[in-house]
Amino acid sequence: MTEQSKIFFNNLKPLLEQFETRLLAIGIDPKIPIFYDPIQYVLRLPGKRIRPLLTILANQTCGGQLNTAFYPALAVELLHNFTLVHDDIMDNDELRRGQPTVHKKWDVATAILAGDGLMGLAYKKLLECPQGDVMTMVRRFTDVMLIICEGQGLDKMFENQSQVTEEQYMEMIRRKTAVLIELSCELGALSAQASEEMIFAFKSFGYALGMAFQIQDDVLDIMADQEKLGKKVGSDWQMHKQTILSIRLREKSDKDLSTLSFEQFKNELQNSGVLQEVKTLYLTYFNQAFESLQQLPQNTFNDKLRELTQFIQNRQW
Amino acid sequence: MTEQSKIFFNNLKPLLEQFETRLLAIGIDPKIPIFYDPIQYVLRLPGKRIRPLLTILANQTCGGQLNTAFYPALAVELLHNFTLVHDDIMDNDELRRGQPTVHKKWDVATAILAGDGLMGLAYKKLLECPQGDVMTMVRRFTDVMLIICEGQGLDKMFENQSQVTEEQYMEMIRRKTAVLIELSCELGALSAQASEEMIFAFKSFGYALGMAFQIQDDVLDIMADQEKLGKKVGSDWQMHKQTILSIRLREKSDKDLSTLSFEQFKNELQNSGVLQEVKTLYLTYFNQAFESLQQLPQNTFNDKLRELTQFIQNRQW
Repeated sequence: MTEQSKIFFNNLKPLLEQFETRLLAIGIDPKIPIFYDPIQYVLRLPGKRIRPLLTILANQTCGGQLNTAFYPALAVELLHNFTLVHDDIMDNDELRRGQPTVHKKWDVATAILAGDGLMGLAYKKLLECPQGDVMTMVRRFTDVMLIICEGQGLDKMFENQSQVTEEQYMEMIRRKTAVLIELSCELGALSAQASEEMIFAFKSFGYALGMAFQIQDDVLDIMADQEKLGKKVGSDWQMHKQTILSIRLREKSDKDLSTLSFEQFKNELQNSGVLQEVKTLYLTYFNQAFESLQQLPQNTFNDKLRELTQFIQNRQW
Repeated sequence: MTEQSKIFFNNLKPLLEQFETRLLAIGIDPKIPIFYDPIQYVLRLPGKRIRPLLTILANQTCGGQLNTAFYPALAVELLHNFTLVHDDIMDNDELRRGQPTVHKKWDVATAILAGDGLMGLAYKKLLECPQGDVMTMVRRFTDVMLIICEGQGLDKMFENQSQVTEEQYMEMIRRKTAVLIELSCELGALSAQASEEMIFAFKSFGYALGMAFQIQDDVLDIMADQEKLGKKVGSDWQMHKQTILSIRLREKSDKDLSTLSFEQFKNELQNSGVLQEVKTLYLTYFNQAFESLQQLPQNTFNDKLRELTQFIQNRQW
């Protein structure tokens, strides 16, 4: 973390601690440990809590009540964790945030049930929201939950498809990543009973940030420093996962990509100009995100959102 | 099926066909077959549709609109199918309604995603309900979804617990079975904007029917004719599943139950009087269900509910 981002997160510490206290109070029920222990385990894994932070800051930017904001913030974090637990089973991943995944630490049955429980708890927390048009929030939440499932379906389909187009890829990351970040911001605005214009601007901000985040992720997976990334560099490449980088390179390069070593693949990305193009693409999305923030009330919370966006744009992980 | 129950179901045919048409229209989206094909497959398996039938008849008994009733009816059927798909993975069952389970026909990843999708679709349909206090319906739906997950957790726990008490067993079937049947009736009344008294009576009816249904199920699993049951007789016994029968017999009998053959176990149930006791218990619940119906408006739909309850009480499957 840079010095600047340390200061940024230190400023947010009291807010994040309040959120964390509420999050960890969920599912403490010693009567059914087989159900609640894995849920507690997942929620205690260290996470950056970017989605709930977006919800809270969006709510506060629109002049909402902090106590209200925590409910949709908890809902998006629980929804996010639901997708992680179930996706980890589907992808047979062994580690999550440096710790064993639920289906490795327990078993597949326990992890399926924990995921289902996280989904139910997400709805429960959202429904407890004391202010705002909760019905609209629940509707949007449900739409997004289904879009995320569809996105996961597309992702699975593409694993067995030799040539994914850029359009298909963009549609997939929109569903798998961008809509949840968009929802996080939208629910913040909705829970603050913000105007239609503010809700729209926050949706645009979240969507652009989500697209930027995922495309940047694809680049970091290939180009990051091992130490800073916190996970294995090149895991997409190793899994033969098609990302915007490999899709664009396939179109530009006359080489057979499947014969390249990881180093050769990296060199080819640089020499062909694809790397620079894709960096430009995600920076365009970051710029859209900054522009959306400019259409929203200018206050200290909007400043925090700009700093958070900056922090994400500068990340090495 | 007896002659009487054939007539009963023939009378309900037009209603059930309308429901079926709406159910099978869900999830037709050729763009993401990996996600929607298994969902369509599950929904097309032959089912008796008892839960949605309860919702529709409860709504109609309270003078509700049929078009409105279909939405909560679809939601409870989708919720039920969600639990079946995920439970089948957890229990590693190979057949459901005589057909391969989703995780056997496809794979575990596909089945997890299909279950998640069914849950999302259940909320979607419930939220589309055009009348009644939809917010209360969604709240109750969420509470019940979580209770069912807890029930599944208890069921799993009990597999590794040598001696389950009758109290624990009753709590488990309440969560795993009775609450969903209770919810089916409650949502019917809520969607008809029925009075508090009617809602309460329908909850009591559904709860009693659900308890009766599950205890009867445990008896049928041991005592039914193979041909009429439609699944293997004695599967609980074979899986060493503790049910009210084995729990009560353990208390009464001085024999070591684990050494008995299936025939000896059946004889012991009869000779000890446990079988008769348990039959009396579920008949008591059936009687409670009938009594609750008497507190509700007496009309042709209430008649149908009484006939349906009678039909379930007389079942051999």
